[in-house]
Amino acid sequence: MSGNKVSRQKPCHHCKSRSASAPPGTSMIHYEKFWLYRHCSSVQQRDRQAQKAGQLFSGLLAMNVVFLGSAFLSSMIFNHVAITLADVWILLSILKVLCLFWITYYLLGTSRQPHAVLYRDSHAGPVWIRGSVLLFGSFSILLNVFQIGYSTILIQCKSRVEIVFPSIEILFICTQAFFLWHHSKDCIQVQHNFTRCGLMLTIATNLLLWLLAVTNDTIHMEIESQLREVERRFAGKAPTTSCICPNTTICKVFQKGYILLYPFNTEYCLVCCSVLYVMWKNVGRRISHHVPHIKPQFKLHGVVLGPLLGTMTVIIGICVFMMYQIQATGSAPNRQVFVMYYSYYIVLLPLMSVVAVIGTIIHALEKKELDTLKNPTRSLDVILLMGAALGQIGMSYFSIVAIVATDPRDLLNSLILSYSILLIFQNITQNVFIIDGLHRQPFAAATEARHTGHAGQHAAASELPGEEETTTSSKEEHTQMSPDKEGEMKEEQNHEAYVQRQVSMLELGQEIRKASLSYIHSYSHLSWKRKALKEISFFLVLCNIILWVMPTFGAHPVFENGLEKSFYGYSTWFAIVNFGLPLGVFYRMHSIGGLLEVYITA
Amino acid sequence: MSGNKVSRQKPCHHCKSRSASAPPGTSMIHYEKFWLYRHCSSVQQRDRQAQKAGQLFSGLLAMNVVFLGSAFLSSMIFNHVAITLADVWILLSILKVLCLFWITYYLLGTSRQPHAVLYRDSHAGPVWIRGSVLLFGSFSILLNVFQIGYSTILIQCKSRVEIVFPSIEILFICTQAFFLWHHSKDCIQVQHNFTRCGLMLTIATNLLLWLLAVTNDTIHMEIESQLREVERRFAGKAPTTSCICPNTTICKVFQKGYILLYPFNTEYCLVCCSVLYVMWKNVGRRISHHVPHIKPQFKLHGVVLGPLLGTMTVIIGICVFMMYQIQATGSAPNRQVFVMYYSYYIVLLPLMSVVAVIGTIIHALEKKELDTLKNPTRSLDVILLMGAALGQIGMSYFSIVAIVATDPRDLLNSLILSYSILLIFQNITQNVFIIDGLHRQPFAAATEARHTGHAGQHAAASELPGEEETTTSSKEEHTQMSPDKEGEMKEEQNHEAYVQRQVSMLELGQEIRKASLSYIHSYSHLSWKRKALKEISFFLVLCNIILWVMPTFGAHPVFENGLEKSFYGYSTWFAIVNFGLPLGVFYRMHSIGGLLEVYITA
Repeated sequence: MSGNKVSRQKPCHHCKSRSASAPPGTSMIHYEKFWLYRHCSSVQQRDRQAQKAGQLFSGLLAMNVVFLGSAFLSSMIFNHVAITLADVWILLSILKVLCLFWITYYLLGTSRQPHAVLYRDSHAGPVWIRGSVLLFGSFSILLNVFQIGYSTILIQCKSRVEIVFPSIEILFICTQAFFLWHHSKDCIQVQHNFTRCGLMLTIATNLLLWLLAVTNDTIHMEIESQLREVERRFAGKAPTTSCICPNTTICKVFQKGYILLYPFNTEYCLVCCSVLYVMWKNVGRRISHHVPHIKPQFKLHGVVLGPLLGTMTVIIGICVFMMYQIQATGSAPNRQVFVMYYSYYIVLLPLMSVVAVIGTIIHALEKKELDTLKNPTRSLDVILLMGAALGQIGMSYFSIVAIVATDPRDLLNSLILSYSILLIFQNITQNVFIIDGLHRQPFAAATEARHTGHAGQHAAASELPGEEETTTSSKEEHTQMSPDKEGEMKEEQNHEAYVQRQVSMLELGQEIRKASLSYIHSYSHLSWKRKALKEISFFLVLCNIILWVMPTFGAHPVFENGLEKSFYGYSTWFAIVNFGLPLGVFYRMHSIGGLLEVYITA
Repeated sequence: MSGNKVSRQKPCHHCKSRSASAPPGTSMIHYEKFWLYRHCSSVQQRDRQAQKAGQLFSGLLAMNVVFLGSAFLSSMIFNHVAITLADVWILLSILKVLCLFWITYYLLGTSRQPHAVLYRDSHAGPVWIRGSVLLFGSFSILLNVFQIGYSTILIQCKSRVEIVFPSIEILFICTQAFFLWHHSKDCIQVQHNFTRCGLMLTIATNLLLWLLAVTNDTIHMEIESQLREVERRFAGKAPTTSCICPNTTICKVFQKGYILLYPFNTEYCLVCCSVLYVMWKNVGRRISHHVPHIKPQFKLHGVVLGPLLGTMTVIIGICVFMMYQIQATGSAPNRQVFVMYYSYYIVLLPLMSVVAVIGTIIHALEKKELDTLKNPTRSLDVILLMGAALGQIGMSYFSIVAIVATDPRDLLNSLILSYSILLIFQNITQNVFIIDGLHRQPFAAATEARHTGHAGQHAAASELPGEEETTTSSKEEHTQMSPDKEGEMKEEQNHEAYVQRQVSMLELGQEIRKASLSYIHSYSHLSWKRKALKEISFFLVLCNIILWVMPTFGAHPVFENGLEKSFYGYSTWFAIVNFGLPLGVFYRMHSIGGLLEVYITA
């Protein structure tokens, strides 16, 4: 099957002429065409240029939609009277309905066309990403159900549209989750430009939903009005607003659930954006090297220390988090709880940084080949890691400047200062560790590549003996001698190749299979380096889980400690936090995924 | 010389082993090394990975500097008391001094090392970019001189640091302009990581200077205080503040010049950033295809209509601009001047859009090869064009929403509305035209490529006859038949190649030279398509010049018409305009460069 595909890649006289007039049954590859680039001499070049043009135009579409939506959102924020939240909801609903139409068309039309999906990107949409789409999607649906319930109870003071919009949202989330679950790996080969535009429209819609979720502070208002109401009741005053939750349990549940589930909705939008972006990059992509993707299984491999330490961290973290939540959500949070919270971080962050640095050093010591194949999913992973880290790093720098400018010698302030500095350092070291790990070839794939390298490509064979050399010779020798040895090896290999061509191919294949099996066997017990890497990445996964849980479920000391709030002013700091916090949460989630991959491939 | 370089590219047994132990006199290429990637089997792969790692780490450095500076700036904006402008100036001066040290070291140390600059990127730092660095640089120096003079006159109420800082700034601008003028094309081959960090530090400093210039509204304050002062004098009141320009001419000149020259400073920072970024991308780059870069000369080629129409546009534009400036800078700008200003745009913008669309269509009709070689300068050009356009497009969308939400049927409002829509459309069509034009091979280079293609690469030769075919056969036939014909041609060509190998190479070379000369001759009179493209790009250059002049020299109707200001609120709209306007000005300037290149290569 795979050989079949590769041969079709190469320009052959017969199929090419047919592909131009394109009855889809006879030739399977639809080369892209674009009226701007009709005069390219080669079909491949025209295809590449048409691809670029398609990406440009669909990108322009998304840009315009995002700008229009942002202008609407900003108007709503800065001029409540002219543009209301309902207007924004109407715009978003129109976009959602358009996306729904496109997704339905894709599911029923595009993807069912003959030869629509010839290739599937094995790196795209790994199970943890698709799982989080489902998880966050179902939480978001629950959120909308709660919202509908809440609005139904308070129907006398809320408009009817507050029931209609969440219903559309539920439909959108369901359809999108279904679509992403089944089609996130597709490299679609028909209707390129229409598909690109559809994907970009969906990305733009998700981005706008995220922006709305980030900037919409009605929840904060609701909480504050509730608090004020409670205070008023304590003071024995009469309630002021007519729109208060009646004292039934169900209303309280709806309200609490709504507030608790809200962060998942922002995460859902971000995750969907990243998956859709990979799909957009994969439109029209033809994967030439059909490397049989052996999925490395998640096994414990006798890793002990990492899980143990990590579990301890998580348990302590949960205790700290619960104490924090109990005390800090009161009307006047006391200082001690902040000291405890920051102390926990100050102990944990240096540990994580040191461990990540050690991991990077071990990576450098390991004699593994680098995986330098083109891989849009990995590139996106790297960009997202760096981009999402910017949220926390930016916030940390704002904190640092605020503290240094006020009073760095105060106990709490010095704690926050060191927390901020350590956080920057931790983010950077962890990113370097993950990025470095993602570029190492997985263990199974490395042996596999060796296997196919021997069997298929005689031209590339010169590199492989050089590498096997590496594993036996000492390091110092290798770095100085390898170019010479490579040359010698190349000659030897060429000679061997000539000799071996005399031998029948069948015999050769069996020999190679035997050799590679013995190779796998000899490596089946882990070396200390691989073990250490697995310990480290497991530990970091657990640490990142607890660091993800805390802000996701409501611990926001950067907002509650009041220091930066008073320094920058409420609205400015609110905007900074609203931008930085969801990115930070997304960063933790994304790190977990990256670290799991490092764990599996180590 | 070029052949020499290419042969050095290829891995040979002797030079590679030497390059690993690296005495710089014996081998000229310094492959990059990085401790993380010592175990790559091939030197090239290790080099590539080391390059990526170096870029990552220098990028992280820049990111941290930019974040720290942004936090400082934001603190200054939102909390004047704790962080003053002087603090920000101190931080920036430290950065400038560090950059100065690095630039000096580069000029005297790094670039003078043996084999430091083996290759020069012929696309980097074209003369118009370096020219604008010099131009904006000298204006910026003048600006600082004015500032020093102004502060000296008002020394009684200004602190002494306001003389020190501009002096450092002058030194920084001079050194940087000298450095960029002489070294913008360098592909440095030694001290890779140190150079990368130095470049990134300089980029970060320039970015922060730009951010400061954008957010610093002291000038607006100064103007407003002056206006208020004048009003007060008319009303016969006593002056309030002690720090007022004495009634000498020199002080007025300093003040006016300062306000007039201010926009050039922001442009200078942006231009320097882009040049430095290209240098950073070029660190360690080895240009393998040494295509003899024949510089197409700027000639008029009998182009008449474009310059004529363009000059008319410029003259009318200057009249409109002057009338606008005279009336709008008064205390109460009247409606008529805005109507005139926007009408001018509404006539001009559709014309430009239509012309750009026609140009794009002609590009599609032209039978020219696409230039798909890797070219960091062009990639950056495209990104900058798209990125800078975002400023204007974003502002336009904000205007549209504001107008639609208030009263779109008012005459002035409907003018602004159509102006905004047309501006978006114009930006997009012009971008598509420029990007498309940049990817076409220049005329001279195309013939040159054909030349070398025949002589050197027999493997690639199959593509060239196919293309010559194209120029004679009709279009419809070509698109359907070319794959078939290409195949046939390939076979013929292979056959010919075998035959020709019998003939002596010298004879062959002469034959080819003759053929290509006759080819050049037959194309020396311009076809109507090339002429039309030249007319179009010349016209667009002139239009962009006038559209650049207007906002640069102070016509800011988006701020002065008061519509959006009252809709979004003063501070919000001020931030949006401050972000969007400089980007818009930069966009016009960058478009001029891109269009000139399209003109020359058409």
